[in-house]
Amino acid sequence: MFESKDPQKTSLESLGEFGLIQHLTQAFEIKKPSTLLGIGDDAALMNFGGEDVALTTDMLVEGVHFDLGYTPLKHLGYKAVVVNLSDIYAMNMEPTQLTVSLAVSNRFGLEALEELYAGIYHAAEHYGVDVVGGDTTSSTSGLVISITAIGIAGAIEAVKRSGARPNDLLVVSGDLGAAYLGLQILRREQEVFKVNPQHQPDLEPYSYLVERQLKPEARKDIVGLLAELGVKPTAMIDISDGLSSEILHLCTASRVGCSLYEEKIPLDPTMIGAAEEFNMEVSTVALSGGEDYELLFTISPDDYPKIKGNPNLTVIGHMTDEASGAQLITRTSQSMPLTARGWNSFRQPAGGQND
Amino acid sequence: MFESKDPQKTSLESLGEFGLIQHLTQAFEIKKPSTLLGIGDDAALMNFGGEDVALTTDMLVEGVHFDLGYTPLKHLGYKAVVVNLSDIYAMNMEPTQLTVSLAVSNRFGLEALEELYAGIYHAAEHYGVDVVGGDTTSSTSGLVISITAIGIAGAIEAVKRSGARPNDLLVVSGDLGAAYLGLQILRREQEVFKVNPQHQPDLEPYSYLVERQLKPEARKDIVGLLAELGVKPTAMIDISDGLSSEILHLCTASRVGCSLYEEKIPLDPTMIGAAEEFNMEVSTVALSGGEDYELLFTISPDDYPKIKGNPNLTVIGHMTDEASGAQLITRTSQSMPLTARGWNSFRQPAGGQND
Repeated sequence: MFESKDPQKTSLESLGEFGLIQHLTQAFEIKKPSTLLGIGDDAALMNFGGEDVALTTDMLVEGVHFDLGYTPLKHLGYKAVVVNLSDIYAMNMEPTQLTVSLAVSNRFGLEALEELYAGIYHAAEHYGVDVVGGDTTSSTSGLVISITAIGIAGAIEAVKRSGARPNDLLVVSGDLGAAYLGLQILRREQEVFKVNPQHQPDLEPYSYLVERQLKPEARKDIVGLLAELGVKPTAMIDISDGLSSEILHLCTASRVGCSLYEEKIPLDPTMIGAAEEFNMEVSTVALSGGEDYELLFTISPDDYPKIKGNPNLTVIGHMTDEASGAQLITRTSQSMPLTARGWNSFRQPAGGQND
Repeated sequence: MFESKDPQKTSLESLGEFGLIQHLTQAFEIKKPSTLLGIGDDAALMNFGGEDVALTTDMLVEGVHFDLGYTPLKHLGYKAVVVNLSDIYAMNMEPTQLTVSLAVSNRFGLEALEELYAGIYHAAEHYGVDVVGGDTTSSTSGLVISITAIGIAGAIEAVKRSGARPNDLLVVSGDLGAAYLGLQILRREQEVFKVNPQHQPDLEPYSYLVERQLKPEARKDIVGLLAELGVKPTAMIDISDGLSSEILHLCTASRVGCSLYEEKIPLDPTMIGAAEEFNMEVSTVALSGGEDYELLFTISPDDYPKIKGNPNLTVIGHMTDEASGAQLITRTSQSMPLTARGWNSFRQPAGGQND
């Protein structure tokens, strides 16, 4: 009958997540006058009644983006909201509404869903966002969460990925790599637990790292801070896949190059300690770890005095002309091309990563 | 460790889909001034810059909402868009943008996704909607499609479920029950095919029914027609779960009762023939079949002359006071309470139904 005779000629893995989306959506054209920006930024941008409105969506799949073996459902609900709000903040905008769709297998009872929703509720409360709709359905296996967030521009208008210019400074909020190491710690404890179920993990020394993984926050405060300081970034993106991958997105969208200084990348001391414990190179973790949900943005050099010395912000490099490409300047002052080692859900095993 | 110790005290099945959503979201409050209408209608309603904006989302899960054994991927993509647009039209609004999120297992190759996206593309073209974003990720099993649609109010403002008044006329577009019988026919052919793979199905006599199931259309034309006729419905909903269930939603939201006349329910001759073949009662199919994606609405009796005789619209009853309840007036003029026999994804086996 209609059975799909899928020739499986091309595997999804070979294209990667970005390549796949690009390939599948290349035929789509923007026709509505209300659409300002389509696929390719942290959020789409529309204009309704003269007001800029952002729209973004993220889907989290059990066994791909999260493992319930070490992810409490309440934290999962919270994080599922946060990853979407982070995309709105990455447009320098304020999230206002969201919808939540769930597919759940019969392995979940009502109490489990109540836990998940408690996390969603707390995130919505914390960020002041209304949950205005959704869909709850059964699934044949596992849990799938699809959240869509809407936001509006505040006093300062929307910031896209495409506005960076040569000589702009490259700035990042917070510190990087902690969420990835938090995941490694949770996985290690899970392995120990499998061998010895009596094992009581002492996660106290790693509490910062574990919290960055399980209950990340979106940088609402940075958007507020920038408005306060009177700084409008020229381009912005959130760090979900890893610093190197996000820098390359900014460079591509803005058609510029960049010089990133390895020694400037902000790292938390517990992150450095844990990286050593796992025998990992700190810069590699910071560049490729992902899930930090910090904001990465570029500002005009004229705005430097306004952000100088702010403990929440670190200048990690500057943009260059396109021909110079994206370069990592190592601690030994060597220049090497920056390569994306961000996450690809079609390649890696079940983890705790979001797009 | 953090393994969810789910006591499974309450099964999701016992609550049903509507009860579950209501239970899980009862704590959510609307706080943003831009939110006009939250959970509980076909779409949420916001106001940005003085313009009403609708937001709706639907998740379709393989093995629950569709069976790829008889659903071509291109049709699935088309239908996934249509079910969302139908929710926007049910607000008397015009869809403008949508996002598409997919979770796909490695059983799907690129060519399969291209087929799915071809359907999405055709639907977006046909309805004049921009695809502005989405997410594509891997899944551990099966295919999950989550689509979110946004729409704006046209010349006539948004219509909610809650505005029906006693004496308003109850009107439906098109005819009912055909999609459900189309599904029965596809399933029957699939069973025959399993026994005899050489079997060549002759679906020609059932083409209308099969098309209603596999490639439904959203009633964009009805929203246009109503504007042309100068009719603003007092309440509106789309028929995704079955006529009786949708009428009860209108009655509950509007706090009214209704009298539905069985003999007035519009039926296509091929639907009547197929119902007889399957030994099913035509009215039961029309009342509970679902997936017709027709529009059900109420109008002031004063507007009756404007719609009288229109071949696209049928008056099937009228609203009454709340105390009278929702009544079905049978062909033998007996009055019986109307009961919801709509679809519940937590109760029924894999089908082809959407919420």
